[in-house]
Amino acid sequence: MKKIVILGSTGSIGTNTLDIVAKFPGQFQVVGLTAGTNDERLEEQLRVFKPAAVALSDPAAAARLRARCQEAGVEILPGPDGVAQVARWPGTDLVISAIVGGAGLVPTLAAIKAGTCVALANKEPMVMAGALMQEEARAHGVTILPVDSEHSAIFQSMKGHRREDVRRLILTASGGPLWELSRDQMRDVKPQQALQHPNWKMGAKITIDSATLMNKGLEVVEARWLFDIPPTQIEVLVHRESIIHSLVEYVDGSVLAQLGLPDMRTPISYAMNYPARLPLEPPPLDLARIGHLSFYEPDHVRFPCLGLGYEALRTGGTMPATLNAANEVAVAAYLEEKIGLLDIADVIRAAMNAHTPHEVRTLEDALEADRWAREKAGALVRAAARS
Amino acid sequence: MKKIVILGSTGSIGTNTLDIVAKFPGQFQVVGLTAGTNDERLEEQLRVFKPAAVALSDPAAAARLRARCQEAGVEILPGPDGVAQVARWPGTDLVISAIVGGAGLVPTLAAIKAGTCVALANKEPMVMAGALMQEEARAHGVTILPVDSEHSAIFQSMKGHRREDVRRLILTASGGPLWELSRDQMRDVKPQQALQHPNWKMGAKITIDSATLMNKGLEVVEARWLFDIPPTQIEVLVHRESIIHSLVEYVDGSVLAQLGLPDMRTPISYAMNYPARLPLEPPPLDLARIGHLSFYEPDHVRFPCLGLGYEALRTGGTMPATLNAANEVAVAAYLEEKIGLLDIADVIRAAMNAHTPHEVRTLEDALEADRWAREKAGALVRAAARS
Repeated sequence: MKKIVILGSTGSIGTNTLDIVAKFPGQFQVVGLTAGTNDERLEEQLRVFKPAAVALSDPAAAARLRARCQEAGVEILPGPDGVAQVARWPGTDLVISAIVGGAGLVPTLAAIKAGTCVALANKEPMVMAGALMQEEARAHGVTILPVDSEHSAIFQSMKGHRREDVRRLILTASGGPLWELSRDQMRDVKPQQALQHPNWKMGAKITIDSATLMNKGLEVVEARWLFDIPPTQIEVLVHRESIIHSLVEYVDGSVLAQLGLPDMRTPISYAMNYPARLPLEPPPLDLARIGHLSFYEPDHVRFPCLGLGYEALRTGGTMPATLNAANEVAVAAYLEEKIGLLDIADVIRAAMNAHTPHEVRTLEDALEADRWAREKAGALVRAAARS
Repeated sequence: MKKIVILGSTGSIGTNTLDIVAKFPGQFQVVGLTAGTNDERLEEQLRVFKPAAVALSDPAAAARLRARCQEAGVEILPGPDGVAQVARWPGTDLVISAIVGGAGLVPTLAAIKAGTCVALANKEPMVMAGALMQEEARAHGVTILPVDSEHSAIFQSMKGHRREDVRRLILTASGGPLWELSRDQMRDVKPQQALQHPNWKMGAKITIDSATLMNKGLEVVEARWLFDIPPTQIEVLVHRESIIHSLVEYVDGSVLAQLGLPDMRTPISYAMNYPARLPLEPPPLDLARIGHLSFYEPDHVRFPCLGLGYEALRTGGTMPATLNAANEVAVAAYLEEKIGLLDIADVIRAAMNAHTPHEVRTLEDALEADRWAREKAGALVRAAARS
């Protein structure tokens, strides 16, 4: 039995992971679960999966859970320290890192430093501190397996083939729910509309990132560190149907790709049981019924966030952490209808312009840039909201 | 330097192979070349690539070449025995098997029995005697690398992944030059029209096989033996643009595929230099410019040859060899305008109906079925030509 910890167990990736655990009894043992504030969902999960420990980063939520679950025989730990403690729980074989946003960095790094293999669904840690994450992974002999559908596709398309033969990584993007809109139409898009993703059912933050294409900008940064490929060899292709999840082109003109119906359980289960596949046996991919797949160049005018991702990566150092933090603040403000959709890119760009980048040598360097950018973006959001 | 022998060096695959040899000096040494009747082209090749031995299966052509090349310091061998002798030339690292049709079986098996790795572009040997070929390959520790673009795609999409996790092989078919025609329109199609393949530049026999979809029927049989996958797990998908060369679906819903612009040099070079890729550096695959890829179910009414391939495989034994030989005879008759396009399937079906299949235990079993079917198909062609 593979012993797993799920960081962010009450989110979309977390619940999908537990679905897979339930579907394959005897194969996985859940030793730890962590969440942010959702103590009710976490309680349901701990009663079914009986982990040794759980944590809630919100101490008040942890206190509530403790009050209700004294008899459950599970250690309930409060706050970010509690989350990190579960992340490095002794005897864990695999940590599924699925916390939304930059909050995933500290516990994911804690797991790596404990020498535990990580299935990474949370792209922000790689964006904030990719070089550091990989350095620690190497130092502790840890494999980082991608869970993001695009990166899982690239990982699968590189497996069995020589890294030195790779010419390009091609990340596909659905184009999101706003692909057909003009820039003027995008200005007035309400969160409700932007949250209607055409192909994938995901959490709110990542769905807005898909609508602005910032998700793809973050994925470019993530791919750079996951696969150690320079940004000049990473491209983005808009593919509306989200059937080809990404592609890898080799020096002989051969392109390997991973395809499938949009279902996060496929990449999650691949990382969970790597290198053997789990017989999920979903409906077969019927390309004749789908009929056709379409492809477009990304549009950098309507979707400036993608370019900001490349720009942050070229600048390097603390700039990607700045990009990420500013984006989180701007997306939260947009979801609260404090700013408009087009303001998101403006806030990020202004925060990046105001930032003086320096190297990320330590976790603290990344966290400091993150704090600085959140504060800056907060001020920019307030200014935008007033205007 | 990898020492290579090319069986069928004057054909489309053979000349492409020599182009690659010329493009990467110092990597390959041509030790042997064989052809059928084209002594002039073979002479040009031997003067450039200076092999130790060449053979022409047509003894008269061999005699002509000998008369012209006495000073060239190359052994010139006549007849099928000469071809087989070159196929098992001592010290050869790789035999590229690219003879058209069933004539490739004996020399390819000779290479395998000599313990030489084979890059198989010639699908008919696998169709005629797939089980035997694989048995001999196992016995002599020989790897058979596919060169056909579809099988290379499947091979590349399985490499790095577990065979036991495979759910389906999906061979793509362009649909060929006659895909848009009704059955009535197909009746009167002249060879000149049927030879206009929309995507691939190939020899005449395989281009007609593409027009009737028999090529795909033969490929299903080839895939069954190359990858040891039962026919119930092999499907055909019509994909007009020939960009996705084939796909492999796994039990978790993941589908790996190999894509590329239609260029035989990619799969040829992959087999030649396996597992490292050769930096052919062709133009990048620009899916945004291609715009869209389309997919259809195969049409068994207009293209009965595909179903005949499955049928021969299900029956097994000598039936695929019968199918193959009858097809060769019928295609040759069609190219000589002795029979119509729709007669091809009728001739094959009649030959299969008349055949009593038995097991292929030895090479002689396959060759005997081949001879029987050629004779039978010849008679059927003459009858069809008279009617």
